Amino acid sequence: MARNTQVAADHDAPPITRILADYVAGHRSRGWSDAVDHEAHRTFLNWLGCGVGAARHESVEAALAAVRMLEPAPQASILGRAEKVDMASAALLNGIGSHTFDFDDTHLKTIIHPAGPVASALLALAEHSGASGRQLLDALVLGIDVACRLGNTVYPDHYDRGWHITGTTGMFGAAAGCARLLGLDAQQTQMALGIAASQPVGLREQFGTMTKPFHPGGAARAGLMAALMARHGYTASPKAIEAPRGWAQVVSTKYAWNEVTDELGERFEISFNSYKPFACGIVIHPSIDACVQLRERGIAPGQIERIELKVHSLVLELTGKKEPADGLQGKFSVYHGCAAGLLFGRAAEAEFADEIVNRPDVVALRRKVVATVDDSIDEASVDVTAVLADGRREHVFVEHAIGSLQRPMSDADLEAKFHGLSDDILGTARSGELLRACWALGAAPDVRGLTALARP
Amino acid sequence: MARNTQVAADHDAPPITRILADYVAGHRSRGWSDAVDHEAHRTFLNWLGCGVGAARHESVEAALAAVRMLEPAPQASILGRAEKVDMASAALLNGIGSHTFDFDDTHLKTIIHPAGPVASALLALAEHSGASGRQLLDALVLGIDVACRLGNTVYPDHYDRGWHITGTTGMFGAAAGCARLLGLDAQQTQMALGIAASQPVGLREQFGTMTKPFHPGGAARAGLMAALMARHGYTASPKAIEAPRGWAQVVSTKYAWNEVTDELGERFEISFNSYKPFACGIVIHPSIDACVQLRERGIAPGQIERIELKVHSLVLELTGKKEPADGLQGKFSVYHGCAAGLLFGRAAEAEFADEIVNRPDVVALRRKVVATVDDSIDEASVDVTAVLADGRREHVFVEHAIGSLQRPMSDADLEAKFHGLSDDILGTARSGELLRACWALGAAPDVRGLTALARP
Repeated sequence: MARNTQVAADHDAPPITRILADYVAGHRSRGWSDAVDHEAHRTFLNWLGCGVGAARHESVEAALAAVRMLEPAPQASILGRAEKVDMASAALLNGIGSHTFDFDDTHLKTIIHPAGPVASALLALAEHSGASGRQLLDALVLGIDVACRLGNTVYPDHYDRGWHITGTTGMFGAAAGCARLLGLDAQQTQMALGIAASQPVGLREQFGTMTKPFHPGGAARAGLMAALMARHGYTASPKAIEAPRGWAQVVSTKYAWNEVTDELGERFEISFNSYKPFACGIVIHPSIDACVQLRERGIAPGQIERIELKVHSLVLELTGKKEPADGLQGKFSVYHGCAAGLLFGRAAEAEFADEIVNRPDVVALRRKVVATVDDSIDEASVDVTAVLADGRREHVFVEHAIGSLQRPMSDADLEAKFHGLSDDILGTARSGELLRACWALGAAPDVRGLTALARP
Repeated sequence: MARNTQVAADHDAPPITRILADYVAGHRSRGWSDAVDHEAHRTFLNWLGCGVGAARHESVEAALAAVRMLEPAPQASILGRAEKVDMASAALLNGIGSHTFDFDDTHLKTIIHPAGPVASALLALAEHSGASGRQLLDALVLGIDVACRLGNTVYPDHYDRGWHITGTTGMFGAAAGCARLLGLDAQQTQMALGIAASQPVGLREQFGTMTKPFHPGGAARAGLMAALMARHGYTASPKAIEAPRGWAQVVSTKYAWNEVTDELGERFEISFNSYKPFACGIVIHPSIDACVQLRERGIAPGQIERIELKVHSLVLELTGKKEPADGLQGKFSVYHGCAAGLLFGRAAEAEFADEIVNRPDVVALRRKVVATVDDSIDEASVDVTAVLADGRREHVFVEHAIGSLQRPMSDADLEAKFHGLSDDILGTARSGELLRACWALGAAPDVRGLTALARP
């Protein structure tokens, strides 16, 4: 048997698993700036709204029906629903729900959606154990830091290869956060990260199916269980992340270890988290933003003869669907996105409903959109001209769309987005209370006040 | 953005996911020879003994302590223990237990240990649903066929890369078997395989830690949950296995699709399953076998000056630990294995106890073993020479070790092995009853008779 069974070279890997474990177990509570702490609140609030909004979606219903076959104990809340399930299943279901609308947060350097795996595991564990809001936020910042730093380590090769990086780094974030919340020492935390390393969840082939949001859910569950097992003495390789046959070198050909160690405890990856104003792929956000701006200038659909877009090639490659047949296809149509922006001034989940995508005025307007690829236009930008019936031409150039790091959504924008997701599920008044509980999370003595508000 | 985001070529993949789903859902009950059916009983019996034997091992205790934090419903048995847990957790725990001693079955073409993930999921589901022994056996043969055929498809590249193939194909076997047991139709079965595809569990870096046996356990749980989710309408890519960004092409550079399709429904991979006489990695079995033969020739430890082994490179790569500190490390030491064979004439679980590995006479003897890689020696073979104090040289060449397909363990050997594992846990009489229930499984109207016997 002549095959090469040599392992990859060690590449002088630093002891990454131990370094991260020391960091997670040892970093001081709220050991970061006010800006970072505020971003943690924003990340949590945005995640919570997405989860509540999807409470009755068929992906959550189907997964919950499977979970019910296990006769789960009522330990932790399912966002936006009355019933409780065991905390591992709550982590799974809330991870699924929060990613179902493709409307959750994005760590733009890696395209990781970090809150799904991390916050879903943490809230379930925190609720069951009666942790404080501060404990939850500490674990959230540290867990997201671990997941995103490991993402930086292997991105882009790992993603290009076909892994859905949210679920293949998320189990580390969930394990780290839960280890912190459980008060595990550095050695136990190292074991939790090690157990998690064997459980990457996610293939890009699943995009467009319910298994895409399963990835953050599965990663949340895996990370939570890894921490619980480590707490009870379960062992793993202490070098599970960095060893030649450990996670990084098995799932990627790029492993930039310095991404873990550089400015560790000083720079926090949650600072680079962003939130979507529109419930669709980020590549058409500039076009929708431009159309919302045209609407705000007073341009009415009836006046429009033609909308001319100059876009980066990726826009048509990923979202060039001219005649979307339903809401899901609408998310892959820059034409529908523009029509929604012009007609409604928004493109949240409601604007991607099947009946909206097929409404005659929406269809008529999207057919007036003409998109051409222009090599001078950046992926983050768009150049839009509205040609009106009276011959006038209105021009908008968007360099960075709303929701980007350069033009982040304001706290008020996030609140409006939250209400848009939550009001139908919890009612406007309760949604407002829940929002206030999110902003006040750092001071909450017990997160169970908040989880009670998240159940109808 | 200059990086290459092209996906791998499709390589004209056949619709593997659908083909396997059609097969699992449509193959007739007991649609194979008596020999295959007998092998299914042997596989089940061997797996069950391993699981019972590990009932009180610290790996099972630690995992169970974590599971107890979920307050599981008493749905399914933990082998060799009185208490029950929910069926997903039972799948996890029995998968861990059955692989804990590294004493379970081996599909030699791929080094997959197929019963761990498949039987652990199936028995839990069958017990909870009150399935018959025949239903369980049908699902076992088909589930193992799916896992091992997919293993054949990607082996050896996938394994060489660092994946622990038992847990990275096992979730398919568990999903397929559970889909069959649940009576899912072909389309639902296709979704179950698709959901499973996103959840490979296992890195070779974990060898020597409790996370190694976690791999079949995690795969068992993942496959069972995938089938339950598919039953309730959860969706996945219908090409999740074969698509350019699907499982096979993401986890391997080799994907020989014909391994799935050739003689499907005619040749059954369970026919190529083997059972270990020694409680350690298969790669050192020829060396132990040779040392047992030397002992049988009357060579006593005191006579030995040196034991010279000529081995395949894999032997030292996987089991080259010269100074194992405890029983678990002893399993990865060809040196200890040889010492056990020479001193005790056996290497079952007892010979890998911490106190045996550290006993002065054992340590002294293992230090006399010198192993060198010889390119002319096959992985299945070994060339051993005992150099005695009086200058004599005793030579043994083992082409195929006991337990190989060429020299399989007899049914009586398997029964003796079962008693060796089970008697301490269940007592000899009960172990005998359980053995008889295993042989009679095909005729059992309800598997709960058997699971009741497996609890003390």
